[in-house]
Amino acid sequence: ADQPAMAAARELQGRLTKPAGSLGALEELSVRLAGVAGTCPPPLPIPAAVAVFAGDHGVHAQAVSPWPQEVTAQMVANFLAGGAVVNAFARQAGAAVTVVDVGVATPLLQGPADDDASAAPMGGGEASAALVGGGDARPALVEANVRRGTRDMTVEPALTADEARAAVETGIRVAEGLIAAGAACLVAGDMGIANTTPAAALIAVFTGCTAEEATGRGTGIDDAMHAHKITVVRAALDRHAPDPADPLGVLATVGGLEHAAIAGFILAAAAHRIPVIIDGVIAASGALAAAAFAPDAVAAMVAGHLSVEPGAAVALAHLGLEPLLDLGMRLGEGSGAVLALPVVEAAVRVLHEVATFDSAGVSEK
Amino acid sequence: ADQPAMAAARELQGRLTKPAGSLGALEELSVRLAGVAGTCPPPLPIPAAVAVFAGDHGVHAQAVSPWPQEVTAQMVANFLAGGAVVNAFARQAGAAVTVVDVGVATPLLQGPADDDASAAPMGGGEASAALVGGGDARPALVEANVRRGTRDMTVEPALTADEARAAVETGIRVAEGLIAAGAACLVAGDMGIANTTPAAALIAVFTGCTAEEATGRGTGIDDAMHAHKITVVRAALDRHAPDPADPLGVLATVGGLEHAAIAGFILAAAAHRIPVIIDGVIAASGALAAAAFAPDAVAAMVAGHLSVEPGAAVALAHLGLEPLLDLGMRLGEGSGAVLALPVVEAAVRVLHEVATFDSAGVSEK
Repeated sequence: ADQPAMAAARELQGRLTKPAGSLGALEELSVRLAGVAGTCPPPLPIPAAVAVFAGDHGVHAQAVSPWPQEVTAQMVANFLAGGAVVNAFARQAGAAVTVVDVGVATPLLQGPADDDASAAPMGGGEASAALVGGGDARPALVEANVRRGTRDMTVEPALTADEARAAVETGIRVAEGLIAAGAACLVAGDMGIANTTPAAALIAVFTGCTAEEATGRGTGIDDAMHAHKITVVRAALDRHAPDPADPLGVLATVGGLEHAAIAGFILAAAAHRIPVIIDGVIAASGALAAAAFAPDAVAAMVAGHLSVEPGAAVALAHLGLEPLLDLGMRLGEGSGAVLALPVVEAAVRVLHEVATFDSAGVSEK
Repeated sequence: ADQPAMAAARELQGRLTKPAGSLGALEELSVRLAGVAGTCPPPLPIPAAVAVFAGDHGVHAQAVSPWPQEVTAQMVANFLAGGAVVNAFARQAGAAVTVVDVGVATPLLQGPADDDASAAPMGGGEASAALVGGGDARPALVEANVRRGTRDMTVEPALTADEARAAVETGIRVAEGLIAAGAACLVAGDMGIANTTPAAALIAVFTGCTAEEATGRGTGIDDAMHAHKITVVRAALDRHAPDPADPLGVLATVGGLEHAAIAGFILAAAAHRIPVIIDGVIAASGALAAAAFAPDAVAAMVAGHLSVEPGAAVALAHLGLEPLLDLGMRLGEGSGAVLALPVVEAAVRVLHEVATFDSAGVSEK
């Protein structure tokens, strides 16, 4: 982070027509974003672009979710049709939605030839202006399926190192495409039935917490399934004993394709000095992996909200991030992060638009 | 609140393509807003209109604030010029700002003849389309000065009953004008140097808490001034022993003109079944007065954020309201409430736009 830009933002906050510190977390956020951009005021984070990374999970066979696996593909179709919560929130926020099939098990009903969705097969990371078309644009599909779901991490590594690397690189390419198309802020979301189970394993490895502390109820499971889910996470950790100093190895053994892609997405945002808003427990687990690859990437991360999932709080605390919203949400899709976009924008807008005591002729105390 | 509309909203939430309850507080908010409107889905809360009620305080003579009293009028000019935080937030949210001089002590520099601001002297509560012109409209000024600041409540009642009533009626007229001009959501904000002192007194009276519990540091005062401010609040309460069953009497003895106007503003919103977003400790104290006048008015109130001021939490708990945001803000002006507007809109938008499991062909668990 750029220290002179941060100092300039702090100094400017003190001259604006409001009591010093009266905007609380927004003031600190504005300072952080000045540091990310390396300039004060930092650019407004608009337009923002949302990427929803979708994948399936071999560990679904261990009965860790009450939902059938095909819901992942069905929800991808729902995203492309604009019918999911993240679509509604993104339309309101004026943010484009890109759905990335990085590992869905079921063949998608809507492919690139479908008239109802624009598809952008990943080539060499080239920019697509359609990816940042604003809130009214039709959601885009990026077909970058690394494999049709991970393997069951309780019996073997979920991914090979090459597969995990391919997913990380997909995330990087998607971010670079969106940035090249004009996105000034990225939002990382996810879809994947059973994906809170590998997220819990990732969080346990990267933070050192226990399986119990990292494992929540996901979409809403009962006590018995929750207890079972904890034993599944613990079994995977015991089998692979992943080394947190080897993030690619961690992602391969106990991760997921969307988790790995989100890690790459965040790394690319940070490398391009673009803020990236983290959603819930899946995105937070990907953020931990990104931080393990490159600790400086944390500077570009903004925690959009505090998910109900216990692992989210553990991960954000480990990253030193304070969530902006705390609304009892646990949906994923990037929904909580998109909801935080206006707060991020407002924090920056203050530095652009609010008058100083001098300019407005307002007396100081 | 309309129970069938609330039941319909709950039932619809359960059919939308997301795990039941996964939107947390947004789901309950959508149900409440259906109850306010008496229909499901309730109308989107756009356009919203922000009213900033400005007044001064005789108790300023007791040295409860480090800021000079003329800052109230200077900030009114800043609002009208579009340079304050609430202006920046309202522009972003597409909400019009109306500034209401209900009791500023210093003559305003910008009057109705000034080219730089549109002025709408209060006639008979007639609607003015200019009042709801969207976020790009120039802020409007409503000149409804009841008196040039209250009296010092530590030595005499701050207002006569007639003055307090006039302020309440001003708030009602402003709300009715904005609603007639098309506002689908109202936001209550305030400006007034020293106005956290009467707010603390109002909160103590209406909730039964102590002066210590209700009194905070306002714009940021030191320990000595804070201790003194508590004794000032206690002295006013001891002198007048206001009866919480007589809200007009409470507003007159220990209130403020902007607090009284906000009470009326909220009452009118509730009477017209329009949601009204409460900002910080001043608006919350006005909300307590509104609830004392008409307990059913609470149904239309949405707590935008949790101010740092301790009295805000006490007041919201008394009203049974959960704040949407908690960002460590303590600015007033309606700023925290405007920041919550997208959250309120998103809660309603879900009911309008998200596909059902049936319509999207998504399997249920």
